[in-house]
Amino acid sequence: MINIGLLGFGTVGSAVFTVLAERKAEMEACLKQKIRIKRILERDMAKHKSSEAFPLMTTEVADIIADPEIDVLIELTGDVKNMIEPLRRSISAGKHLITANKALLSKYLEELTELASKHEVAFRYEAAVAGAVPILILMKNISALNEVLEIEGVLNGTCNYLLSRMEAGLDYDTALAEAQALGFSEADPSSDVEGYDTMYKLRILSSLAFKQPVLESDISCTGITGVTKAEIEQALSQGQRIKLVAKATRDEKGEITATVKPTAVERDQLLGSLDNGENAIILRTSNAGTLTFSGLGAGGRPTAFSVLSDLMQIYEVLS
Amino acid sequence: MINIGLLGFGTVGSAVFTVLAERKAEMEACLKQKIRIKRILERDMAKHKSSEAFPLMTTEVADIIADPEIDVLIELTGDVKNMIEPLRRSISAGKHLITANKALLSKYLEELTELASKHEVAFRYEAAVAGAVPILILMKNISALNEVLEIEGVLNGTCNYLLSRMEAGLDYDTALAEAQALGFSEADPSSDVEGYDTMYKLRILSSLAFKQPVLESDISCTGITGVTKAEIEQALSQGQRIKLVAKATRDEKGEITATVKPTAVERDQLLGSLDNGENAIILRTSNAGTLTFSGLGAGGRPTAFSVLSDLMQIYEVLS
Repeated sequence: MINIGLLGFGTVGSAVFTVLAERKAEMEACLKQKIRIKRILERDMAKHKSSEAFPLMTTEVADIIADPEIDVLIELTGDVKNMIEPLRRSISAGKHLITANKALLSKYLEELTELASKHEVAFRYEAAVAGAVPILILMKNISALNEVLEIEGVLNGTCNYLLSRMEAGLDYDTALAEAQALGFSEADPSSDVEGYDTMYKLRILSSLAFKQPVLESDISCTGITGVTKAEIEQALSQGQRIKLVAKATRDEKGEITATVKPTAVERDQLLGSLDNGENAIILRTSNAGTLTFSGLGAGGRPTAFSVLSDLMQIYEVLS
Repeated sequence: MINIGLLGFGTVGSAVFTVLAERKAEMEACLKQKIRIKRILERDMAKHKSSEAFPLMTTEVADIIADPEIDVLIELTGDVKNMIEPLRRSISAGKHLITANKALLSKYLEELTELASKHEVAFRYEAAVAGAVPILILMKNISALNEVLEIEGVLNGTCNYLLSRMEAGLDYDTALAEAQALGFSEADPSSDVEGYDTMYKLRILSSLAFKQPVLESDISCTGITGVTKAEIEQALSQGQRIKLVAKATRDEKGEITATVKPTAVERDQLLGSLDNGENAIILRTSNAGTLTFSGLGAGGRPTAFSVLSDLMQIYEVLS
């Protein structure tokens, strides 16, 4: 029996609960053991009184960390400040960790990797980069068998949406107000539009690809708040579109250059074809050549797919 | 120590030998054990007298199958008739099997899967579908966590090349003669141009995605030999290109429809953007949404990457 502690029951947490229930038979057949979510951390329990998940809920993370039956934590809170210490304790107590918390990963990737290795637990975070796109699972083989020469990607759906709406004629502020009204952007949009969300993802992806820490401070980051209608129209008139592009290269001396910035890309190429929630990653490698991956970068079920892929991966390898 | 028996030393076999030598340190660090190629099957040994690989060569497959030290076979001969029996014996003798032999897989996929399962050995064939594109490694998680609704792909580089040259104004026969002179097409091009190569790959991919056998006889297959200059020009004039597209869908009743045929696709979409050796696969799934993958479908190093990824995967899981 695999006992899961689920931290967070928002869009992604509740989708993990639902998809796990729907795909339980298939997953258990693959892993040759039973799976259950034993406890759920949720601050606002009252909201979920009518949910099947309610009896599993607690507002106290300590209830979950201290439960010796819980084998693996799935952390989906997005909270850095209140989460890092419980996650450290949980790893030290021998629980595997799956997280989609890219801000937390960006800050503590090396520390948590080392701690997990010391305590011989699995530490996986597929859902933190490009949502449903299964890229991190491939990184170990790609980076063992190749020199990765360049990573390029579009990793933030909110920016795609805003830039698409500006192409349709809206100015930046109107597009943002619309996205917020539709729930495509947070009340505080700065993590998306200032490029930090994209920077976190590039920091994670490039550290794995280049097998050395690429820190936030190594990445030059410009968001989309300064993109003007004139720039958008200029790009369109040349068969291009402006996208928030993340890019990291390593030269022959091992020097890494990493940037996040609005970039004009060809309309008929992969990055220029993306809309709304679509993310894409292009890897240029020494043996495999150029590999590209795209899919939905956010949303409940797509992100739950990556979270549960991590779960499958942990228990397939361990079994 | 992992002892490999390498069957075949053509473009892919020799690239596996070279890439393994170049990436030995990284691979051994990942797998925490030594790796060596112990024997190589090669019919025409005289050709390789000056190669480092020569001392390992034999013309007798029995020398390799009977060697109790050999743990894993990497089969890259492309030969179905002479290979199936030695491979059966090898699995029964407890050796893991990695193969890129799609014609053999298309014929014996279920039998070999069952035999490998019975003898508890690994059986992997990433390189048989879409060259360097890491798609099969993802299939277990994708099909456990989703209903796969549709697979669509361009899986043959030779057809891409021929169709691109026809777009440049050549007729089919001239384009084919040119491809053969350049080594992009075999002396007998029928497997590529009649669509059989694409059919083998669709047969493998769809059987894994739909978790039920999709046989050659279930696939309606039309190659590119009948594509005319007029059709190519007609497509181009509408912003489209003709590609040999493989497609398989499963409807709500579980009924599978699978076709390989020349299809007009939009120039500014993924399949329409492919040239020469580029392959792409689009999966439409119930939870993860649409996932796309592209990369080089052939060539020594790209294919060797997938072969060696399989090796990494086997020994990571087993270790």
